[in-house]
Amino acid sequence: MVGFDADDTLWRSQDYFDDAQAQYERILSAHVDLADLGQRLLDVEKRNIAFFGYGVKGMALSMVEAAVEVTEARISARDIGRIVDLAKQLLRHPVELLPGVREAVAAVAAQHPVVLITKGDLFHQEAKVRESGLSDLFRRIEIVSEKDPATYARLFEEFGVTARGFLMVGNSLRSDIAPVLELGGWGVHVPYHTTWAHETDAELQAGHGRMRTIASLDELPQALQELDHQSQLHPSHPGEWIA
Amino acid sequence: MVGFDADDTLWRSQDYFDDAQAQYERILSAHVDLADLGQRLLDVEKRNIAFFGYGVKGMALSMVEAAVEVTEARISARDIGRIVDLAKQLLRHPVELLPGVREAVAAVAAQHPVVLITKGDLFHQEAKVRESGLSDLFRRIEIVSEKDPATYARLFEEFGVTARGFLMVGNSLRSDIAPVLELGGWGVHVPYHTTWAHETDAELQAGHGRMRTIASLDELPQALQELDHQSQLHPSHPGEWIA
Repeated sequence: MVGFDADDTLWRSQDYFDDAQAQYERILSAHVDLADLGQRLLDVEKRNIAFFGYGVKGMALSMVEAAVEVTEARISARDIGRIVDLAKQLLRHPVELLPGVREAVAAVAAQHPVVLITKGDLFHQEAKVRESGLSDLFRRIEIVSEKDPATYARLFEEFGVTARGFLMVGNSLRSDIAPVLELGGWGVHVPYHTTWAHETDAELQAGHGRMRTIASLDELPQALQELDHQSQLHPSHPGEWIA
Repeated sequence: MVGFDADDTLWRSQDYFDDAQAQYERILSAHVDLADLGQRLLDVEKRNIAFFGYGVKGMALSMVEAAVEVTEARISARDIGRIVDLAKQLLRHPVELLPGVREAVAAVAAQHPVVLITKGDLFHQEAKVRESGLSDLFRRIEIVSEKDPATYARLFEEFGVTARGFLMVGNSLRSDIAPVLELGGWGVHVPYHTTWAHETDAELQAGHGRMRTIASLDELPQALQELDHQSQLHPSHPGEWIA
């Protein structure tokens, strides 16, 4: 079985967040002059993940909280309203597939069962999957609150696969690749040109025997072949996802 | 198979929302004198469901938006900060089981596979399920963005059951009972003493042959027996959940 991440793997997402953050900083710059505004917002977001989890709505509430905090409550209600509007724009951004995605997912789906595993707001992710036009290609669509080994282990049980029989494709080493490798599975890393700071603090897995890094999903079939070949060289760790 | 709703069926929830709304109205009353404040907030919430879905975080963003709107942007940033704090309190309220819940769920789980089907923020609902101490009793825990016939039909397929083989227990006619009856399933309605206004606009199903209304989960085993008896009187509509 092959799993795909969604945001920044199948379609553009972080660009919209980066753009919202730039607009946010422009709104705040009328009230306060802080070189480290981005870092202050990230600090509030990280502190609030225990309350809010991931996703646009939690980010928006953190933006409001940080705006009150860094302006020492000098920000106007009108500008707070603009921050809420940023969230609404983010929740309605168009779903723009990355190059080669439809072909790559269809090619893999012709050979293996494929599933979508994505993190964040249930409601927003469902809307994006619907709008992507890809949902028919996936046997299951799983929206989870955290992509850690425990979550993947639970999903493998629900899917009826072993970790060795599962390969994950995604842009985040921390969320898509490291936990699956840790369980004994396989990974194909597709870096995106921009990554949320919170996702960058994973140990690099480059050179790991059960993963490949590719520049875009066009290269996915080739990467699967290479991993297939390698698993035959090491029959003690067969890649059952190939079957 | 028997499904349980969570909020206001297994544990108290709406009370905390009602309390947050009362605090919200107290905060706003310093800036504006509106008899219809509750209605104005509900209007904003309903308008925003298409953006935010259900749950505390969307409600909090609607509260902020409505606060800016009804005060014509006169509310202070400090008070906006208090509204965000209300959301954080709501996300951390203790999980307090309703009377007889543990015994009732355990009794049903001894006879049938039981699942939990709840709506709202993924992250918040998962936290409450964990804290409830009940998660081991459920074969599956499904957090969905909307409880409509399409959602239940998808879940039945994933669970490998038919609608006729499924009985749902919950406090909301609109979300828990009506869609399951519509698909041909069974329902036990357990009204809660307070209901979110958005959930009250379902057509009453009282007197429907495949449902019972009970005052608390203590009465659930008796209700299941009655529906069992009835299904035997009407063998053209057997209740397969009994098997």
